[in-house]
Amino acid sequence: MSETADIPTEDTPQGEVDVSKAVALAILIEEGDGAGIGRLLEGLHPADIADLIEQLNSEQQEKLARIAPDVLTGDVLANLQWDTREVVAAELDPAHLAAAIQELDSDDATLLIEELDDALRQQVLAEVPEENRAALESSLSFDEETAGRLMQREFVAAPDFWTVGHTIDHMRAAGDELPELFFDVYVVNTGFEPVGAVPVSRLMRSRRDVKLADIMEEVRIRIEPDTDQEDVAYYFEKYHLISAPVVDASGRLSGMLTVDDMVEVIQEENKEDLLALAGVNEAGLTDTVFESVKSRAPWLLVNLGTAVLASGVIALFDAAITQLVALAVLMPIVASMGGNAGTQSLAVAVRAISSRDLTSANARRVIIREMLTGTFNGLIFAVVMGVVAGLWFQNWALAAVIAIAMVINLACAGLAGILVPMGLKRFGADPAVSSSVFVTTVTDVVGFFAFLGLAAMVLL
Amino acid sequence: MSETADIPTEDTPQGEVDVSKAVALAILIEEGDGAGIGRLLEGLHPADIADLIEQLNSEQQEKLARIAPDVLTGDVLANLQWDTREVVAAELDPAHLAAAIQELDSDDATLLIEELDDALRQQVLAEVPEENRAALESSLSFDEETAGRLMQREFVAAPDFWTVGHTIDHMRAAGDELPELFFDVYVVNTGFEPVGAVPVSRLMRSRRDVKLADIMEEVRIRIEPDTDQEDVAYYFEKYHLISAPVVDASGRLSGMLTVDDMVEVIQEENKEDLLALAGVNEAGLTDTVFESVKSRAPWLLVNLGTAVLASGVIALFDAAITQLVALAVLMPIVASMGGNAGTQSLAVAVRAISSRDLTSANARRVIIREMLTGTFNGLIFAVVMGVVAGLWFQNWALAAVIAIAMVINLACAGLAGILVPMGLKRFGADPAVSSSVFVTTVTDVVGFFAFLGLAAMVLL
Repeated sequence: MSETADIPTEDTPQGEVDVSKAVALAILIEEGDGAGIGRLLEGLHPADIADLIEQLNSEQQEKLARIAPDVLTGDVLANLQWDTREVVAAELDPAHLAAAIQELDSDDATLLIEELDDALRQQVLAEVPEENRAALESSLSFDEETAGRLMQREFVAAPDFWTVGHTIDHMRAAGDELPELFFDVYVVNTGFEPVGAVPVSRLMRSRRDVKLADIMEEVRIRIEPDTDQEDVAYYFEKYHLISAPVVDASGRLSGMLTVDDMVEVIQEENKEDLLALAGVNEAGLTDTVFESVKSRAPWLLVNLGTAVLASGVIALFDAAITQLVALAVLMPIVASMGGNAGTQSLAVAVRAISSRDLTSANARRVIIREMLTGTFNGLIFAVVMGVVAGLWFQNWALAAVIAIAMVINLACAGLAGILVPMGLKRFGADPAVSSSVFVTTVTDVVGFFAFLGLAAMVLL
Repeated sequence: MSETADIPTEDTPQGEVDVSKAVALAILIEEGDGAGIGRLLEGLHPADIADLIEQLNSEQQEKLARIAPDVLTGDVLANLQWDTREVVAAELDPAHLAAAIQELDSDDATLLIEELDDALRQQVLAEVPEENRAALESSLSFDEETAGRLMQREFVAAPDFWTVGHTIDHMRAAGDELPELFFDVYVVNTGFEPVGAVPVSRLMRSRRDVKLADIMEEVRIRIEPDTDQEDVAYYFEKYHLISAPVVDASGRLSGMLTVDDMVEVIQEENKEDLLALAGVNEAGLTDTVFESVKSRAPWLLVNLGTAVLASGVIALFDAAITQLVALAVLMPIVASMGGNAGTQSLAVAVRAISSRDLTSANARRVIIREMLTGTFNGLIFAVVMGVVAGLWFQNWALAAVIAIAMVINLACAGLAGILVPMGLKRFGADPAVSSSVFVTTVTDVVGFFAFLGLAAMVLL
């Protein structure tokens, strides 16, 4: 046994998809060779198998589920992205799904079953033994994207008056009843409320006669099953938690959250922010063209509306443009610079809001900074663009007009970039979603209006 | 002792900045009341103290470091964002910094010392005892953003022939020499190469006579000190790792990485991607106007260049615009829709590249999907915009021109959105940085050229 046993020796960097295996898998699926697929994937980590499956298109994924269902173990299913999981689950036998689910801890089992459509979910649940079914149904009773869905019902708890020795003896006796993996022992009071947590490694280091109460970390955060997963991920990040107890409404310990699930939540939330800022509702790599169109067209429609609005502003000044066509040539520059400066300010603001660094205590300072940053950048590019326009069209009055419009638009861009997301947040909306459209509407309208309006007043 | 002791009872949601405390802190700093500051912050979690300090402006932060250095413990400094840490560290006594550093594990200590300027770092290192100094200097010898900087030199290892009982007895005897917190015991062979890892909780559950080799997880990933932190974070995420061993060039176990550091790396990398896509080089909440201008102006300058290029395309058709001013009114719509569709496609591509889902095995399918998605969206909005333009200007030839230009530009946008980041990646550049500018250059130039060129041919 050597640590290099699983490390690919060829071109594939470790941890990345082995393209030659991906191609081989696709060929074996086309050939319908279920046994060959089993041999190809044997010994691979479930995460690597999941990666290979995600390289297939959805028809191939469906066929794989039909001809080689045995490679789709619980662990592999849990490692798939949700859109792929949905595709293969629809092809699997409910009994196979029920067996896969029972391999998993309750949090992963919930993840797997929550995405099935209602009819299939009922069929699968019917195959799960009574006691596990009740636990699954209770997890499913919490809203999606909450702590209740992510929590594991298995945890280790000990009363605060126990000693280290007592706790260790108890755990060794409990053996198989303990969770597969845990990082903290939760210390509970007589009301079964978690009052502290002792990392397992600290238990190991401490003398047997030490009381748990003397070595525990205080529990600072109260997580209930309906706490939003984004809040939970934030607590984990801020307090460097590895695990955290979940309490029910009466404060009794009822579950455990672990950091590996939070890493996924953090990635998911970051992905949503990035896509939302770009105007994409949802995206998976195996999306079809139809799904992609569906998730992007709505925001393009909104953008069309605001673009027509901006055009309306231009139309107000059509006489000026006819007299001086240089206005038509230069006007997109003012709008484009404003759009860029607004997007910069917006990205900084969305990030500060999602990391909760932007609060009412510093909002005023940040707003002023963004406006001044926009203004200063406006001044810089007013000079640059003024010189360019003056030399290009040999018209220094026109140069002055574009310079002034640039300052106005970039100052407004900075302000809009911070005020729009803060406003959306105040009204309870997600600042990442739809902010972009509002900000570019402001910068287009202000840009065209300032430039063409000034030109109409000064030049004609 | 109750679990609610630290949970704020007023308006502040738990874990978020207590604005009234932030205001009080600012007032105490203005008053120069160091003792009052100590009382205000007493009993708070270091992460909460760090949050409060981050709400101050940099003059206040500097004054805090001068009048109340004792609140800036190692843990508080480690929780600060790097830009704030830089501000306060410059005001602290080297002896104070050296003491703070020695409170911390080697990974956090490295984090703290690596950002000091050279002169201060030498002064601080001189105050650190010989043995710790050597370890710190060795960590600093690795490049920034590598595993070597993040790794902890303290870890727990056991030979593969040991039993569970032997290992536990050894750990309990070692006591204080063990790391403050650890999650796995690394199993090493006779060459001190890590061949497996046993989670501490599994050690607890197993019988004393079981051999470590029989319950260990294989080590699948080889992390060396110069492995990029982004790769390391990806391994942690993919394989759901809680900790991982680091090996030196000869394969010997030399350090340990833990998931809490990886959560920070993941957030940092996501922040960089989001800001880079928006054209911001770097951003901190306490940045001054000057710093903000400096980090945003370069990309605005690049954008100005591409905007002038696009204007050059418009200038080619100035005669057409003078004849039919509706062209000037409508042309920004074509460019804006293309820019939006390109940004959508780009965000999806950047995300897929950073999560390593986009590989040579599926690239062709994804490229085709993006082009078709652009084309179909182009067809949808060609119809919508054709009708709008036809009704607005009562010119159905103009409507046909804008419709055709829309399809061309959105198809190109889809293609550019995926090909630009893939191309940058192939040339070893970061696909998030500078992609936006290239993509919008394509959509502006193609949009103006297609619309005005077709119009000049058909309408005039």
